[in-house]
Amino acid sequence: METAIQPLDAPTAIRKRRSIKSFKSEPLPPELLRELVDLTVAAPSSWNLQDWRIVLVQSPEQKAALAAAAWNQQMVVQAPVTFVFAADIRSWEKPFTERIFAQAEEAGAWPTKAVEYFRKAIPDSQRALGDKIREYAVKDAMIAATHLVIAAESLGLATCFMNGWIEDQVKAVIGAADDPDLAIAVLVPVGYAAEPRLDPGRLPFGENVFVDRVGQPYT
Amino acid sequence: METAIQPLDAPTAIRKRRSIKSFKSEPLPPELLRELVDLTVAAPSSWNLQDWRIVLVQSPEQKAALAAAAWNQQMVVQAPVTFVFAADIRSWEKPFTERIFAQAEEAGAWPTKAVEYFRKAIPDSQRALGDKIREYAVKDAMIAATHLVIAAESLGLATCFMNGWIEDQVKAVIGAADDPDLAIAVLVPVGYAAEPRLDPGRLPFGENVFVDRVGQPYT
Repeated sequence: METAIQPLDAPTAIRKRRSIKSFKSEPLPPELLRELVDLTVAAPSSWNLQDWRIVLVQSPEQKAALAAAAWNQQMVVQAPVTFVFAADIRSWEKPFTERIFAQAEEAGAWPTKAVEYFRKAIPDSQRALGDKIREYAVKDAMIAATHLVIAAESLGLATCFMNGWIEDQVKAVIGAADDPDLAIAVLVPVGYAAEPRLDPGRLPFGENVFVDRVGQPYT
Repeated sequence: METAIQPLDAPTAIRKRRSIKSFKSEPLPPELLRELVDLTVAAPSSWNLQDWRIVLVQSPEQKAALAAAAWNQQMVVQAPVTFVFAADIRSWEKPFTERIFAQAEEAGAWPTKAVEYFRKAIPDSQRALGDKIREYAVKDAMIAATHLVIAAESLGLATCFMNGWIEDQVKAVIGAADDPDLAIAVLVPVGYAAEPRLDPGRLPFGENVFVDRVGQPYT
């Protein structure tokens, strides 16, 4: 993308990022939104299934409906766009998969033999997840959401991981009320910060980072 | 940190990253590992609970045991360190929480009134999660793991999100077999790539990115 913005290096973006709770109404330039989407879907996923389903909520009506599904949190109304990260817990059974194989084969990334193996290994491994099938799809969506958040910060934008919403209501807003395969992972409003926030700090490493075994603190 | 490495900007790190499957045995300089840990725990979490429990598996014995718990994937043996991302699904009931409050109040990030509210709101909201309590803790751990992966790439290192392991066996390896509150989210070996990998590509945006409603493709 041609842009006047010189992106921050990753460590600086990570350290500068805060969870911003109020946004200006200023819209995102379309090419900047496109760059964010591109960096979001550059995230890896299990078997490259790309099982996220991302909805960019940006019309005034949809923003109002989404805010109502999220305890009326006004950041969804204020921000020019909120990314709804859904995950398809049965994506591997859908036509996407053959297209993913074809692309990877054409790119030379996956040999034909690997693809033949994946055709059986993917359904086998996904079914073996049992009642963790939803958790695994949500994990992929969270990786993509985190790509968005770090990329946005590096490009001068603000974000917030939002966990406060009613899943069935969010699904209804994005037109997926009847899709039992769709799980909502997280919402991320993106825009320009209206107010800064301070860093609440972190525990010393030794409290929750360990060496080789839980209880051997990393100091 | 003083370092000779000029970190990559976040978009470049995101685009360059591949899931690397074989690593050199070359160790990480301790100060580089420390920087990675610092950037990992800089991740946000629900209520800043920092409910990840991260184990840096690096001794030869522990690496061998962890590989055995992960279908003998040799990257765990090869890489100088593998980050095990666990999540404490009841972290809010533990003494950490008061220390987190004290730090945030001291930093001026959370007013005393907010802390008073959180003392009740956090247990209420966590209990209201019901059977999603594990999913929410795992989501926080995935955000931290993704911080690690993007930060490592920006600093010239290679990583891989690993989903192939037996949860009970991983818990036994890290000495948490008896802790019912600990969920394993993901494993991430970190080191220097022994072999490059090609990009398998991504679906066109319109396949899984939508505007306002699922089925309205973003193009």
